[in-house]
Amino acid sequence: MSLGVGIIGCGLIGAKRAAALGTARLVACADLDAARATDLARRVPGAVAEPVDRLLTRADVDVVIVATTNESLAKVSVAALEAGKHVLVEKPAARTVAELDGIAQAAARAKRLVHVGFNHRYHPALQKARELVDAGSLGPMMFIRGRYGHGGRVGYDREWRADPARSGGGELIDQGVHLIDLSRWFLGDFVTVDGIAATFFWDMPVDDNAFLTLRSAGGQVAFLHVSCTEWKNLFSMEIYGRTGKIAIDGLGGSYGVERLTFYRMLPEMGPPETTAWEYPRGDGSWAIEWAEFLQDIHANREPSAGLPAARAALDVVGHVTARSGYHFP
Amino acid sequence: MSLGVGIIGCGLIGAKRAAALGTARLVACADLDAARATDLARRVPGAVAEPVDRLLTRADVDVVIVATTNESLAKVSVAALEAGKHVLVEKPAARTVAELDGIAQAAARAKRLVHVGFNHRYHPALQKARELVDAGSLGPMMFIRGRYGHGGRVGYDREWRADPARSGGGELIDQGVHLIDLSRWFLGDFVTVDGIAATFFWDMPVDDNAFLTLRSAGGQVAFLHVSCTEWKNLFSMEIYGRTGKIAIDGLGGSYGVERLTFYRMLPEMGPPETTAWEYPRGDGSWAIEWAEFLQDIHANREPSAGLPAARAALDVVGHVTARSGYHFP
Amino acid sequence: MSLGVGIIGCGLIGAKRAAALGTARLVACADLDAARATDLARRVPGAVAEPVDRLLTRADVDVVIVATTNESLAKVSVAALEAGKHVLVEKPAARTVAELDGIAQAAARAKRLVHVGFNHRYHPALQKARELVDAGSLGPMMFIRGRYGHGGRVGYDREWRADPARSGGGELIDQGVHLIDLSRWFLGDFVTVDGIAATFFWDMPVDDNAFLTLRSAGGQVAFLHVSCTEWKNLFSMEIYGRTGKIAIDGLGGSYGVERLTFYRMLPEMGPPETTAWEYPRGDGSWAIEWAEFLQDIHANREPSAGLPAARAALDVVGHVTARSGYHFP
Amino acid sequence: MSLGVGIIGCGLIGAKRAAALGTARLVACADLDAARATDLARRVPGAVAEPVDRLLTRADVDVVIVATTNESLAKVSVAALEAGKHVLVEKPAARTVAELDGIAQAAARAKRLVHVGFNHRYHPALQKARELVDAGSLGPMMFIRGRYGHGGRVGYDREWRADPARSGGGELIDQGVHLIDLSRWFLGDFVTVDGIAATFFWDMPVDDNAFLTLRSAGGQVAFLHVSCTEWKNLFSMEIYGRTGKIAIDGLGGSYGVERLTFYRMLPEMGPPETTAWEYPRGDGSWAIEWAEFLQDIHANREPSAGLPAARAALDVVGHVTARSGYHFP
Repeated sequence: MSLGVGIIGCGLIGAKRAAALGTARLVACADLDAARATDLARRVPGAVAEPVDRLLTRADVDVVIVATTNESLAKVSVAALEAGKHVLVEKPAARTVAELDGIAQAAARAKRLVHVGFNHRYHPALQKARELVDAGSLGPMMFIRGRYGHGGRVGYDREWRADPARSGGGELIDQGVHLIDLSRWFLGDFVTVDGIAATFFWDMPVDDNAFLTLRSAGGQVAFLHVSCTEWKNLFSMEIYGRTGKIAIDGLGGSYGVERLTFYRMLPEMGPPETTAWEYPRGDGSWAIEWAEFLQDIHANREPSAGLPAARAALDVVGHVTARSGYHFP
Repeated sequence: MSLGVGIIGCGLIGAKRAAALGTARLVACADLDAARATDLARRVPGAVAEPVDRLLTRADVDVVIVATTNESLAKVSVAALEAGKHVLVEKPAARTVAELDGIAQAAARAKRLVHVGFNHRYHPALQKARELVDAGSLGPMMFIRGRYGHGGRVGYDREWRADPARSGGGELIDQGVHLIDLSRWFLGDFVTVDGIAATFFWDMPVDDNAFLTLRSAGGQVAFLHVSCTEWKNLFSMEIYGRTGKIAIDGLGGSYGVERLTFYRMLPEMGPPETTAWEYPRGDGSWAIEWAEFLQDIHANREPSAGLPAARAALDVVGHVTARSGYHFP
Repeated sequence: MSLGVGIIGCGLIGAKRAAALGTARLVACADLDAARATDLARRVPGAVAEPVDRLLTRADVDVVIVATTNESLAKVSVAALEAGKHVLVEKPAARTVAELDGIAQAAARAKRLVHVGFNHRYHPALQKARELVDAGSLGPMMFIRGRYGHGGRVGYDREWRADPARSGGGELIDQGVHLIDLSRWFLGDFVTVDGIAATFFWDMPVDDNAFLTLRSAGGQVAFLHVSCTEWKNLFSMEIYGRTGKIAIDGLGGSYGVERLTFYRMLPEMGPPETTAWEYPRGDGSWAIEWAEFLQDIHANREPSAGLPAARAALDVVGHVTARSGYHFP
Repeated sequence: MSLGVGIIGCGLIGAKRAAALGTARLVACADLDAARATDLARRVPGAVAEPVDRLLTRADVDVVIVATTNESLAKVSVAALEAGKHVLVEKPAARTVAELDGIAQAAARAKRLVHVGFNHRYHPALQKARELVDAGSLGPMMFIRGRYGHGGRVGYDREWRADPARSGGGELIDQGVHLIDLSRWFLGDFVTVDGIAATFFWDMPVDDNAFLTLRSAGGQVAFLHVSCTEWKNLFSMEIYGRTGKIAIDGLGGSYGVERLTFYRMLPEMGPPETTAWEYPRGDGSWAIEWAEFLQDIHANREPSAGLPAARAALDVVGHVTARSGYHFP
């Protein structure tokens, strides 16, 4: 019998999740804004809108997707785990490491699984990169450069992301955690963290730019910049090994067509052999990510994008914002 | 009467300088490899090949271009100044700050001018960027991202650049000083220097990659990476102000067509107004740089790309390599 | 007092027109599918949905926009003119030259103006091209290359465009008339028409590809290809003069970002001076086109994109399809 | 024992051939300009410069490469065949079909092989295209678009190509024959030939542009434009089948990096699956072409790029120039 799903937080991301449930069924959804929950429920036959506490007590809900704004991610996830549900919580999963640890404890007590929505791992270009790296096509890893950003919009500094009590931080905890997670996915844990978070443009108490230099135990470097003053939306990740390079550009939509270019060094060196793949068909990442979590649940297997990944990312965020003089709740 | 020029160091760069002397005349040239000096002299009517000491005593030599490998740059420059010549010395001008200070002292004593060959400033895209920034098109500066690198060649780690006694360091003192100088040209002096130099690939005692985070007194950031494991040659400089962005890509040749794209933010935000200029006609930078130095000499005016620029760059190089554990002579 | 507008045909294009009326007011709209008319009317305060004949008799309707499928364009335009309205009729304005001549006669009798929706002229890159050409930046015109196409969709050959009784033809009368009109806009009337229309892929009695070679009285050539087997959506127009070239790529959306590149020849020849403008902000063409027509009405001036332009395009279409063996009604 | 080669015509192309002889040996070379022959001979150990008639009588010359200007291609080829040599003659192989038929008759009499230097077939992107098409990746062919051109240089209309007595024609017999040959290679023989040759810019009696519409027996169309007023050098070939498209851009050097993009249609249509290969490593085509001819000689097998290919191309050239009013010798 297919798994029942409850979605808490029915904004843009909640709706994307609802549209990518594959063999699972949306049973109930909840949102502080009841109209949004009702709208979403109406679009899925058999789904109902309910308050959070009622949703969590339903026996036909096996998995809860937590897609709220940041200040509720941890609290709702803990409640869902305590109600015996598996949880997919959107990144960053919590505002702080301390909050996140609460989720981990609840999961351990409840013996339930938690997948963190580091959705970018499931984009086709990143999946292809993973496959190339795993096949040894780059040789041993050397370093990664990442650039990720958008240009905000009029009034961006009045939105919830600009309020540290709700967001837990600025650009670094928003887009930054994706780049940190992707880098760690390829290079492993970081043992040295350096960086600057700064507020250059927006009139808000959180960072709008962060520059990171992270180093793994093996000396590999992730050199990352995230920005909400990027003016022209940009996603770029460049992965270097001893025998080749992968460049990923774009994420679809306003970030441009997603594309992976693979540069393979030849023994005689000189210009590398170059092959590129484009992914113009939009974003199947949500379905792939979800299918993996369903398999994890089925196999009772710890998700590869789980709480340790979120903890590693939040750890970097906390370090860099604190040393840059930000004191978020 | 046009100025007489002596060139010391007749390799690739010396020859480029000889071809871009404009109204000045090549009078004499010298090289440790006498055949190279003879070859170059033969290509220019009226020029002769001579030993360095003879070249420096010629009354018809007004300006000396020092285009040797790094270990001789300072020594030859000092000798030329002491002989009463103006000097154009190629970057990095010296292997260390201490060496460089010797040039400054000699210049002061001799009351002669020194231009440092930070040639990239004179590329058409950089000149256009300077013009746009000076006109206020970007608004107040926020940060710069720079990426510059090449992929070496078979045996690169056996060449003179791999020997710290000759080069004074690796990738950072080679291509790195260009990015540092360009960033300082736009952002001003750096008061905080962070970074990692590392040797990932080449079998040599100097760095093959460096990651820099530099901060100006006003908090503006230069986030720079240079590499000789770049696999596909790359030059990228992205300059961000509060109202726009400039992206410069390519330097011609194997670095791709030089291009500047200017993104201008509109009050309503959203996608910026976008204009691009390409410079496919090769490299007039040598002639422009030289003409500026001739004007400086004529006006007895301190060159804009002078010893302070070289000192600022070498200071960053020294800091980052030392804290990364390199001990160069 | 602002002009009152009636829209007949409330599909995609009709709705775009309704959203770009500027100082004019939508008064009434009509569609064979009454629900579509009602939907559109509901979105505009003060607008009502009505049958076509009622709409045409309203005194508060000064201008009628005819955005129906092709088989009704001429018939509805004639009726609107006979009711004393000015008319903006979407391209191709009629299925045949004979039908089109009926509109011209009705317009002459009614002393009313007809603008034909050759909307591409009003795209920002085309407007910029017009401005560059008018300023003499290309010198005397030599030739134009145009490529325009899309890849259809599953079932495309079952849609109305595949039925010659409704469409009047295939790809050539659909996208082809745009390229013909744009070429004529730059080169003037064509005196020689050569070409092939063919059905390569779709199971339909109309052409899915057309290859045109058109020649002006001055010997200038338009070399045009349109296709609905283009697989990857493409719009490219390359305009050559004796001293430069303009390349226009993209139309936004699935056709890619709209961009104009201007190549200016230098007296010494070699690589041209290259400047590019991108237009990522979507499509203001509908508003610009409409504003021009309002001015034409105000000044009682013949529209620049009027019936002669449509006649010239349909003339080419008729010639090429007939000589390729198609016999459309 | 390796084959001995004589090269007649020691310009740019002759020298490229000399550098790509693989297992064969350059034995002798000849040029009307004796200095050029001497220069080339000096660069190859064992090679000598000789007059043409002496070269052709040498017993150690098995194959003659004819790389002269057009007016001598046929005459020298015939002489070489009559001397019992195999011949590689550069395109167009002759100025006219009549001249070409003389080569064919000489080859038949001498029972020797003739390869025509349609070198573009051997470029890596074209080879990859051939492989994809042969594997059925595009499905049945539909049409080809080709654009090929350069911007000339100051005085281009005073060079030998501008003199029909020497060249046999203008742009169409120069770059045009490549596009015609490549199109025929993919689509087969053309049964309908339409087109315009014209002189728009250069002050010369030969064409500087040609627009071709060629149709195969199966109705497939090659739609080709060649130009020496292209202002920015361009090579583009787009090959369409029922299930995909191949786009080839660039030929290296001033034509840009050579690249093949393969668009594969999916059954659900929409944006195609997209893969691109770049070939930045320069041009191995000369060696590949030569190796194929050596194998043909070894196997006594008619070259795939032989006299029939040249005849097909010259036939198109003759038709189009004649109907455009050019009367070349």
